[in-house]
Amino acid sequence: MMDILAPDNPVKPTTDRRTLANALRMLAVDAVNKAKSGHPGMPMGMADIAEALWNRQLRHNPADPHWPDRDRFVLSNGHGSMLLYGLLHLTGYDLPLEELKNFRQLHSRTPGHPEWGITPGVETTTGPLGQGISNAVGMALAERLLGDEFNRPGHTIVDHRTFVFLGDGCLMEGISHEACSLAGTLGLEKLVAFYDDNGISIDGHVQGWFTDDTPKRFEAYGWRVIRDVDGHDAAALDAAIAEALTPSGKPTLVCCKTVIGWGAPKMAGTHDVHGAPLGADETAATRTALNWPYPAFEIPDEIRAAWDARKRGAEVQGEWQERFDAYASAHPDLASEFQRRIAGKLPADFAERADAFIADTVKAAKTVATRKASQLAIEALAPLLPELLGGSADLTGSNLTNWPACRSVAGTGGGNYIHYGVREFGMTAIVNGMALHGGFIPFGGTFLVFSDYSRNALRLSALMGLGTIQVFTHDSIGLGEDGPTHQPIEHAASLRLIPGMDVWRPCDALETAVAWRAAVERRNGPTSLLLSRQNLPPQDGGGGRAAEAARGGYVLSEPDGGLPDIVLIATGSEVPLAVAARDLLAGEGIHARVVSMPSTTVFDRQDAAYRRTVLGTDAPRIAIEAGRTDGWWKYVGSNGEVIGIDRFGESAPADALYRFFDLTPERIAKAAHALL
Amino acid sequence: MMDILAPDNPVKPTTDRRTLANALRMLAVDAVNKAKSGHPGMPMGMADIAEALWNRQLRHNPADPHWPDRDRFVLSNGHGSMLLYGLLHLTGYDLPLEELKNFRQLHSRTPGHPEWGITPGVETTTGPLGQGISNAVGMALAERLLGDEFNRPGHTIVDHRTFVFLGDGCLMEGISHEACSLAGTLGLEKLVAFYDDNGISIDGHVQGWFTDDTPKRFEAYGWRVIRDVDGHDAAALDAAIAEALTPSGKPTLVCCKTVIGWGAPKMAGTHDVHGAPLGADETAATRTALNWPYPAFEIPDEIRAAWDARKRGAEVQGEWQERFDAYASAHPDLASEFQRRIAGKLPADFAERADAFIADTVKAAKTVATRKASQLAIEALAPLLPELLGGSADLTGSNLTNWPACRSVAGTGGGNYIHYGVREFGMTAIVNGMALHGGFIPFGGTFLVFSDYSRNALRLSALMGLGTIQVFTHDSIGLGEDGPTHQPIEHAASLRLIPGMDVWRPCDALETAVAWRAAVERRNGPTSLLLSRQNLPPQDGGGGRAAEAARGGYVLSEPDGGLPDIVLIATGSEVPLAVAARDLLAGEGIHARVVSMPSTTVFDRQDAAYRRTVLGTDAPRIAIEAGRTDGWWKYVGSNGEVIGIDRFGESAPADALYRFFDLTPERIAKAAHALL
Repeated sequence: MMDILAPDNPVKPTTDRRTLANALRMLAVDAVNKAKSGHPGMPMGMADIAEALWNRQLRHNPADPHWPDRDRFVLSNGHGSMLLYGLLHLTGYDLPLEELKNFRQLHSRTPGHPEWGITPGVETTTGPLGQGISNAVGMALAERLLGDEFNRPGHTIVDHRTFVFLGDGCLMEGISHEACSLAGTLGLEKLVAFYDDNGISIDGHVQGWFTDDTPKRFEAYGWRVIRDVDGHDAAALDAAIAEALTPSGKPTLVCCKTVIGWGAPKMAGTHDVHGAPLGADETAATRTALNWPYPAFEIPDEIRAAWDARKRGAEVQGEWQERFDAYASAHPDLASEFQRRIAGKLPADFAERADAFIADTVKAAKTVATRKASQLAIEALAPLLPELLGGSADLTGSNLTNWPACRSVAGTGGGNYIHYGVREFGMTAIVNGMALHGGFIPFGGTFLVFSDYSRNALRLSALMGLGTIQVFTHDSIGLGEDGPTHQPIEHAASLRLIPGMDVWRPCDALETAVAWRAAVERRNGPTSLLLSRQNLPPQDGGGGRAAEAARGGYVLSEPDGGLPDIVLIATGSEVPLAVAARDLLAGEGIHARVVSMPSTTVFDRQDAAYRRTVLGTDAPRIAIEAGRTDGWWKYVGSNGEVIGIDRFGESAPADALYRFFDLTPERIAKAAHALL
Repeated sequence: MMDILAPDNPVKPTTDRRTLANALRMLAVDAVNKAKSGHPGMPMGMADIAEALWNRQLRHNPADPHWPDRDRFVLSNGHGSMLLYGLLHLTGYDLPLEELKNFRQLHSRTPGHPEWGITPGVETTTGPLGQGISNAVGMALAERLLGDEFNRPGHTIVDHRTFVFLGDGCLMEGISHEACSLAGTLGLEKLVAFYDDNGISIDGHVQGWFTDDTPKRFEAYGWRVIRDVDGHDAAALDAAIAEALTPSGKPTLVCCKTVIGWGAPKMAGTHDVHGAPLGADETAATRTALNWPYPAFEIPDEIRAAWDARKRGAEVQGEWQERFDAYASAHPDLASEFQRRIAGKLPADFAERADAFIADTVKAAKTVATRKASQLAIEALAPLLPELLGGSADLTGSNLTNWPACRSVAGTGGGNYIHYGVREFGMTAIVNGMALHGGFIPFGGTFLVFSDYSRNALRLSALMGLGTIQVFTHDSIGLGEDGPTHQPIEHAASLRLIPGMDVWRPCDALETAVAWRAAVERRNGPTSLLLSRQNLPPQDGGGGRAAEAARGGYVLSEPDGGLPDIVLIATGSEVPLAVAARDLLAGEGIHARVVSMPSTTVFDRQDAAYRRTVLGTDAPRIAIEAGRTDGWWKYVGSNGEVIGIDRFGESAPADALYRFFDLTPERIAKAAHALL
């Protein structure tokens, strides 16, 4: 056999499509080898599909990764990150070869899994399987809703597709069922997913654990399925993609038969190639087999030129810009509103009008459940914020996430309220996708206890720094009779542990309004609102309290006549208990300060001096919350006490439970005595 | 219209099947009315199906809810709990009418959702949707594997079915995809699920958010589907059930068209009847419509007699007992082993042999990753424990959950290792179902970060007090290049918050062996094992350390020459850092105690005196763990310090990350200086 690596090798670079795909393959092989870790199998298996899609169809502009009408591309099988990095590098994004050589190294732009915000052109952070496809459902839905809202006859400014790569792992994950089922119901026809059907997952050949008839499954969801496409045949792929782009009123799944690690003579088709470097021998053999005579990381100019998408990108974005300019002439207000929405800026008068709403809330001084106060806040904010896009995982009437003027999203016709069905995880990943797409402030709703179901999507929302909002109602044993399966105990504490997640547990309508405002204004991180099922009275303090509550923790009431003997710290439905305990103690001549701490996460970001002022320095502290006590020791210290619940709940009416768990003013007063 | 409620009403109790079903309906209506909360719609809709199954097919004995060969019945749509309570009451379980009148009251045996261990005959705790059907998959799999292991020619002692009721909510949840897909692959033909296809969920008519062709979906999983059964036609139900019981090599889904709230004249077929009392008027109208003239909670003797299953139950169990006695004569050793397994008792020599393994581990003093130490423990324990039933969610080679003698479970032929596929949530609920079935100690495996995906099933494992085990490897930034999506930060802290969950993060092979032993011996609660990807050296201390480690936290090293100046508390991979910091400090004349705290949850159960002895009283304390710091303030107090990670990780090699996050002996020593 001829040594094609020899310097006198007569092979000239060709730019046939297989060779273009091989450039992706070898960049993945070389980068994984250099990093000594990573996943070459998927990039080698999907390179031909990527070549067909990116070179022939994808409408994007490497020079402007934020062009609002670009097609979105989501790598749901995120472990194949080198495929995406190769594509971004070769098509001309700001991702130089040096970054590919730094694959998986500290602070490179090429982390082990694709991360949104780190690498230009990466549309979402993937790796946790099943969530990329679910983000993509959110993106496709956002595209449709934004188009319904802004396009005008003769002026189509929102018109792009969402493409997804996914593998067996994504399809085994339950979240793929939730998101794809809803995508079918909603008829998201601009969503096109390519299934990398290679028959291999980490444990080996999938037939031992995954024998779904996937095409049939997706037809059952109402998808168009294009079956049995040879994922290594450029012509077959072109035909499949062309078919996928014809109107059908349905999302499309293109089922591609592929060989994992295609091109690696010994390892192709085995799980050995999934997640480890090929090693020197197999790499050399692959170079030979692929007729790729170039050294590691070297891409001949001819091949680079064939991949370069900058010219075409400038053209397609230029055409769109002309359309947008015409739109702006015909509909100047709409155009500037579109630009505001895409920029993620709040309306200029938002702060002022939010202030007015908060002032009204103070004046109304209603005794309501904070879930109801949340609905009142949504009702007030929605007219100011057309970007607000609500929904619930089939608990609308319990979460109180809807509002009088909201319109349900259906198969067609716009809308701003999504009935997600009983799909908490799918909902949260779709919410992430809509936030990533831009143009919306999406929020979801479910019972707090079922935040468990969506936990990793909440985490990704925080990791990406998305301004998403979750309405988590029925936030304690106060939900009563539904019992321990439905009563959150560890959830407030547990959500606070997710880095970057702001958690609010307001004590009354005013704090709920403040929390909603903070959530809306927080455009670089997610917020969880923990809300009561049961009524809570308004606390004293008037309008001045709003600014203090916005700091996450504040002195709600200070004892008459000087320094406190004890500091009572409470959140949400336990604030009224602390206030009642204060009164009990006052009767005994003990001066208690009451601190309301609706958000420990926001409070922790205040300066040390403010925090000291609120918590005090000398008086012992007692924290009270109807949940796990562990996290509160940070605030009360060695000389303090925490009153909470460190076991599961019980099925009973709410007041019976508060008595049974001894969450009472008397208990708090007793604890104060013990500390003094 | 005749007033059938009038005292002189001529209607005599009949025991036609509709009337028997109506008894279930009215018990549900009356109990929900009395509790002023609950879910009448599902019991009214599924009453006829329940009557057909329970009166004609279900093999159970109300006098012995623990009979090992009983059919299992799982109410996956657990909000319809009153249907199950009605069935248990009427068929003769120890659930008197008084309990039904106490529905949803504190410490009744009739909580809002069915709870295992509270009510005789309830096979699993349900309510969190989708998990009941997944538990049932575990039960059906356990039945098959137990039968494969213990049945002998002419002696069939394990031969029962698992029946499930489920609704639209369960089918929308992603976990239903995971579990049902695997059930199809494994061909669990003794699993029969009844789908309550009533077209309604809480938000209203499901066509707006759930339009799956469910029969087609389940056929795609390899299930037998019996379509279009009239769920209110006893003959049609009998025929469907008969068909479901014929051998097919597949699990069966019986799709029943039903009307939610069947019998309520105004509210039937609407979501108003789903989750609220009917109220006085509609209740009266329902009594009339159902021709049910009896006062609330009154069941005529004739109807009681027709429901009473005690005689038939004694007969079927008696027949089984005869079979078992014959088996015991023919195979006495097998029979006593079966009894041990069903009783959930460990082998008599387990403690002694576990001691020997631990002694061997001490002697070997290997430097290995704790995931590898875990595999060594499994390898040593598996021959002693035939009930050990392992598996991983497609990460076998990473989790190291397999062992040389394990046999993979497939469509037939027994086995003790399950390739769950990429289905973390489904795996965990299936593990719960196998534990509930009895006869096994099941464990699952995945990366620690993906415990997020299965979190609510872990919670239910803890709520039920099941002795399940989870192997969570790659337990920190030490996993390196895969980056922040794969690096747990909040997970150790977050798992510790689940009440009753024991969490171990061992520092070396010895502590890993101790943790595995504790997990196996803990038969009344779940254990999470948090294990390193990277190698960890054995700590000093010899065999005596095993008994101390079993207490969850202990003094690993005490400074020479008296009391410590400072106490360093660490877990897992940070213990070697604390030890190195101790040495640095010793060089400066500072005496540091090192406390290894592999399990805070176990340590918290030790007596106060022991805990004081370990933590010390005067010296300041520093806790070190590569994760969220919040939970550690409880141990270090106001005068201490916590060194950890309160942000997301980065993609880079592990040692680069430890340096970047400044988790180093030098940093610890510096913190010690700052405190002293």
